[in-house]
This record gives sequence, structure tokens and C-alpha cells, in this order.
Amino acid sequence: MDQGVKFIVDKKDLSTQARTGVLITPHGAVSTPVFMPVGTQGTVKFLLPEMLKEAGVEMVLGNTYHLYLRPGHEIIRKLGGLHTFMNWDRALLTDSGGFQVYSLSALRQVTEEGIIFKSHIDGSKHLITPELAMNIQEALGADIVMCLDDCPPYGVDFATAERSVKRTLKWAHLCREAKKLPTQALFGIVQGACYPKLRSRAAEELKVMGFDGYAIGGLSVGEPKEMMFEIIAHTAAFLPPSSPRYVMGAGMPVDIVRAVSFGIDMFDCVIPTRCARHGLLFTNGEKVVIRNARYREDERPLDETCDCYTCRKYSRAYLRHLFVAKEALAMTLATIHNIRYYMRLMERIRESIGKGRYGEFMEEFIKKGGWENDR
Amino acid sequence: MDQGVKFIVDKKDLSTQARTGVLITPHGAVSTPVFMPVGTQGTVKFLLPEMLKEAGVEMVLGNTYHLYLRPGHEIIRKLGGLHTFMNWDRALLTDSGGFQVYSLSALRQVTEEGIIFKSHIDGSKHLITPELAMNIQEALGADIVMCLDDCPPYGVDFATAERSVKRTLKWAHLCREAKKLPTQALFGIVQGACYPKLRSRAAEELKVMGFDGYAIGGLSVGEPKEMMFEIIAHTAAFLPPSSPRYVMGAGMPVDIVRAVSFGIDMFDCVIPTRCARHGLLFTNGEKVVIRNARYREDERPLDETCDCYTCRKYSRAYLRHLFVAKEALAMTLATIHNIRYYMRLMERIRESIGKGRYGEFMEEFIKKGGWENDR
Repeated sequence: MDQGVKFIVDKKDLSTQARTGVLITPHGAVSTPVFMPVGTQGTVKFLLPEMLKEAGVEMVLGNTYHLYLRPGHEIIRKLGGLHTFMNWDRALLTDSGGFQVYSLSALRQVTEEGIIFKSHIDGSKHLITPELAMNIQEALGADIVMCLDDCPPYGVDFATAERSVKRTLKWAHLCREAKKLPTQALFGIVQGACYPKLRSRAAEELKVMGFDGYAIGGLSVGEPKEMMFEIIAHTAAFLPPSSPRYVMGAGMPVDIVRAVSFGIDMFDCVIPTRCARHGLLFTNGEKVVIRNARYREDERPLDETCDCYTCRKYSRAYLRHLFVAKEALAMTLATIHNIRYYMRLMERIRESIGKGRYGEFMEEFIKKGGWENDR
Repeated sequence: MDQGVKFIVDKKDLSTQARTGVLITPHGAVSTPVFMPVGTQGTVKFLLPEMLKEAGVEMVLGNTYHLYLRPGHEIIRKLGGLHTFMNWDRALLTDSGGFQVYSLSALRQVTEEGIIFKSHIDGSKHLITPELAMNIQEALGADIVMCLDDCPPYGVDFATAERSVKRTLKWAHLCREAKKLPTQALFGIVQGACYPKLRSRAAEELKVMGFDGYAIGGLSVGEPKEMMFEIIAHTAAFLPPSSPRYVMGAGMPVDIVRAVSFGIDMFDCVIPTRCARHGLLFTNGEKVVIRNARYREDERPLDETCDCYTCRKYSRAYLRHLFVAKEALAMTLATIHNIRYYMRLMERIRESIGKGRYGEFMEEFIKKGGWENDR
């Protein structure tokens, strides 16, 4: 592992593969399992950094694809890197752009050299190579950077998946060569679609190259949930136990709870922030669609068990009013709450692992059903 | 003056009518001249109450018209009043709805009884009478409430203006009778369009009835600027010196500076908040249109002389990026800055008055020209 980031496994659960740990980065220690809110364009939408900290956030994800296109990584480099630019002094991880290119850009053509795509902003044509992906992420200066990967859509045949794995491995090697900053940790990404054989082969090969951490990519792209967990469980077992394992983009609460049981340490997802903006609020058990007329005169806090700023200061009736009146503060208050919900969930997860009782915690969580278990 | 709100004139300028004072309300003391940011729908757009406090805001204005229509004043009453509803524990003033009805509703018909209007939200028909205006404002529970007034558009003939003055005076009397809460201060509103004779007559009659403060209404509706100041100067002279004087809705920095010289103590305006949302930022002298390409790589704070959160933490390049990328945080950071600019302006105004040098301050401010002097 590079000098910048260290991972220490702390406690292991008794009946599952779950474990707690600490990821030590140049921007502070991060307790794992960790959930990273997504700050796509240099901001977690609607939130100040202080609000993230108050909610307990220790690490944020930034999107290379977006920042490369706007404002441009060279501008961010010139302004002192993404930490300074967005006023976030805790840990940062940037993705490589591979997934965003897959999900956002108009045209996408994968060649051996890299990914050609058209900007979703102005239609301009770009080629991201492994070297450029490293160069951009170096400019952004995150604590953890990701290899460029080829993320195929759901349902590809074995041959296509195999080709994408080969490419992803080749690019991983090139990224490893291209990375310059010793303070940045580099994670490899396991692809392989829904083919366990490809997944384990990819994991093995990445392990041989040696990375600071390993991500399982290409999930949450439309596959059935049970298939996703099968792949997570299968792949995690092939990854080195001493390194952090990261499932990219999966993030309903129940998904996190289950993935942790297979030894996953890191998560990111837009679900808490995006749901918040649509007035879909995570509470302990109950599903709150805050625009609902039943909350019109409801003077209770959103979640009586929650300690977030929103729940301490405002009624459901006020939140509903802000959403109905289309006031921006609605989004801010809702996002604060959902992020805090996720942070408390991670606290509960770590606590259960610490007690060696994660299996029971998970069983109860799944049995409870409800909103947190929706896809 | 009622038991709730007291006004104490503190210092008087030597060469102008400017004065400083303290408005003591059940929700804290307010230094005058004061600027009140507008919280139309139970929130100053994009800001948490803590941000307003950090910017130095001591009093906020709420819009009766909007809150009456949505969520409804009875809901706010039930939830403990507007202070509790919106989590604002400092002073609050609510307008009567008269001006908002004039500027927003689809149909507006003024009768002797009150104002009939169609909701801008759902087209429903409503009649606001003086009694209802008081009842709504009692439910909202602001520290200062306003009489219902008939605000004619710019350019009305003398007879129409006279009719609106008569109505406004009759309604002022009815509001005075209808107001129940001794903790709420009630302000009368002087109408009279651009006719000094009508303005002084209205001021005299309100003075005889006796109110806790006096507002000059019906300005900033399209009249030439010099006419506005003529009316302010003329009317202020007829209002009792021991009571607070409030010019409703006027609010470019230079307007405030000039109006203060005629003895005006209170202001409200959407300019700082609305401009912020459009990326128009007030700085000490320079006009900043933050989307401008010249700020693309500008690592300086928005205003090097400003102590606001935004200027302490972010570069112009970051603010520009957020605006260009249409990120909501842009609006939050810009609003924080513009509000702080206004609060610092009021501090400078009070300081100059305290030193008896307001005339010089004003002259310099006007001479400087630039953005702050734009209409």
C-alpha cells in the first residue's frame, strides 16, 4: 500500500464476513464500512461541507467525468485541487469516469485505447485513456483514485463480458504505470458482468498486479438483486482480506446491509441525495413521502429517533410545506436528513460487527421490511 | 406603543435626518436602520436560519398573502406560529398582503370591504378584509404586523389616489379595532401615490389614530427615482419622530442610503436574495456577474473586504462553476454573501450616523457610483 492511504481491519463478525476497519488517508481516518455521499460536480447537491460533517460524513465521492468536462481538471489543479476547490478537508475518492461515460454520454465507443464519448453538456467528442484518467484524477487530487474500467450494460453475452474484463485488466495495468502521486491510493476494478468465472479471474489478476484496494464494478446496472449479491459474495472471496473492498454504486439500505455481510467495506450511491430531492425520506422503518397530504398538520419531526438538524428543528408539516411550495430549503433539509440516516445506518452496522452480532442485525433489518428494503 | 414592541431613538446625524435606534421586540432587539430580508413562503430562499444569524440578520419579513394561501394561516397557528414553523427565533414582521395582491394575483378588485383576488396558485377566489388581514397576521404571530392597504399602480390620477388613501385610512382604523394581541405592534401605511398633498394628509390622519410605527407604501412601483425620494422626504417629515418609519419594498443599496438620510428606519426588499439567485453579487464597488468567463480561474474570494462564509471559504472560480453547472449550492452561497453585504451596509450606515457624519458617508457612497447605485 502506498504511503498515503492505509487500511487496518479492526473487528470481524462471528457468523458473517463482515468486518470493521479504518482507512487512514491524508485527509483523516475513515471508519469502515463507510458510505460515501456523491458530490458529482464538486458539491454534494444542496449541502455545505459543514452539514456533511455534522451528519458524520468522513468521505465523499467526486465524479471525474463531470469535473473533467466542467470546470475542467486543469482549472481545479490550478486552484489547488478538488479538496480546496470545494472546501472539503476530509477524505475524497474520485471514480475514473468509466461508469459515468456508460450512463450519461450520448455516444460511447470503447476501443482498446480507451473510451470515446460525446459530452452530455455540449456534444463535444472526447477520448479517455487510462493515462488521461490518471492525469485527471491526479489534478483533482483525491485520496483514492480508481482505474479506468469498461463497464458493459446488463445482459451482455459471455464473449462481450470477457472482452470487457480483458480491457479493464489491461487498463488497470496502464493506470498502475501512469499513476504518479505516492499520496494517492489506486483501486482496481473487477468487471465480469454476471459471470462468476470472469469475476474471479479478474479479481485474481488484479490481486497479482497489486492495488491499494479493490472495487466490484458493473453492478446495479439492471441485474436482478439476487444476482448482484451472488456476484458480490463470489467476488469478495477472491479479494485480499487485508485490502478495502468497495462495491460501486449500490446503495439502498438493505443492499448495503447485505453486502457488508460478504466483507464489503465501502459504498457510494446517489440514492439518499436523489431521493431527498424528490421528497422521499428514509426513517426508521416508515416510508415518508413528505408531499403526502397526511403530513399537512403533522407537528412531529420527520423521525423521532433521528438526531439530524432537520429532525431537531422542523416539523413534518413545515417540510411538506416547503416541498409543496417548491422552496429550495426543502431539498437542503431533506438531504441533511437522508445523509444522516445513512450515516446512522453505518454506525449501527459497525456497532453490530463490533459486538460480533452482525448476522442477527442483518436478519432483523431484512425482516423489518418496509422502505429501507425497497429497491 | 403596545407592550410588545418599543422603539428608542439613539443617535441623530448632524446634517441629515438620519438616526439610529433600537426596536425592542419580544424576539430580541433590532438595531435601526434595519434591513429585513424577505422570507416569502416561510423561508428566506436557500438559507437556513443559522446562516441568516451568522450574516447578522435581526429581523425577517414574511408575506401574509403567500402564507395565507399556502400552507394556510390556521395550520401555522396550530403549529405554534410562524416563528416556530420556520425555526426563526429573532424578530419577524409580516406585511398585510395588500402589496402582494397588487403584484401577484391574477384578478384584483378593490371594494370598500376589502380586496377580492384570485390565487396565483390555484385560481381560487378570496376576499381579504382588514379584519381578516389582522386575523391572519395574529395567527402568524409576527412581532410587527401591518394594516391592510390599497396600493394603486404607478401613474393613477389624483381622484383614484385620493380614493385609495381614504380606503387605506378606513381600513387602518378597522385594523386597529380588530387587532387583539397586545404583544404585536401594528404599523399604519401611508398611501397617496405621487401626490405630496395626499401623502401628508394620510400621514396626519394615521398619526391621529396612533400606531406603533408608520410605513410609506406604494413606492417602487415604477415611478422615477427622484419622485420616490421626493415622496419619502416629504412624508417622513409628517410622521412622529419617536416612532419607527418604514419604506416598504425599496432596496437597492443607494436607495437605502438616501432614504436613511430622510429619517427612515426600516427597509425590506427581495433585491439581495433575488439578485443572488441570478448570480448578481454585491461587492464593495465592483459589479460581479459571477457567470462571466473572466472568473473561470479566479482564485480570489468574491469580495476581499467581506467576512461572510462564502468569501471566507470559496473562490470566484468555484462560485462560477456552481452557477454554470446549475448547482443549488451556488444560490445558497450567493445569497449568504448578498445578505451579508446588506448587513454590512447597514452597519456602515449606523456607524456613520453614530459619528454624526452621515452626510459625508452618503455623498461618498453616491459618488462612488457602480453597481450599488444601479436601479
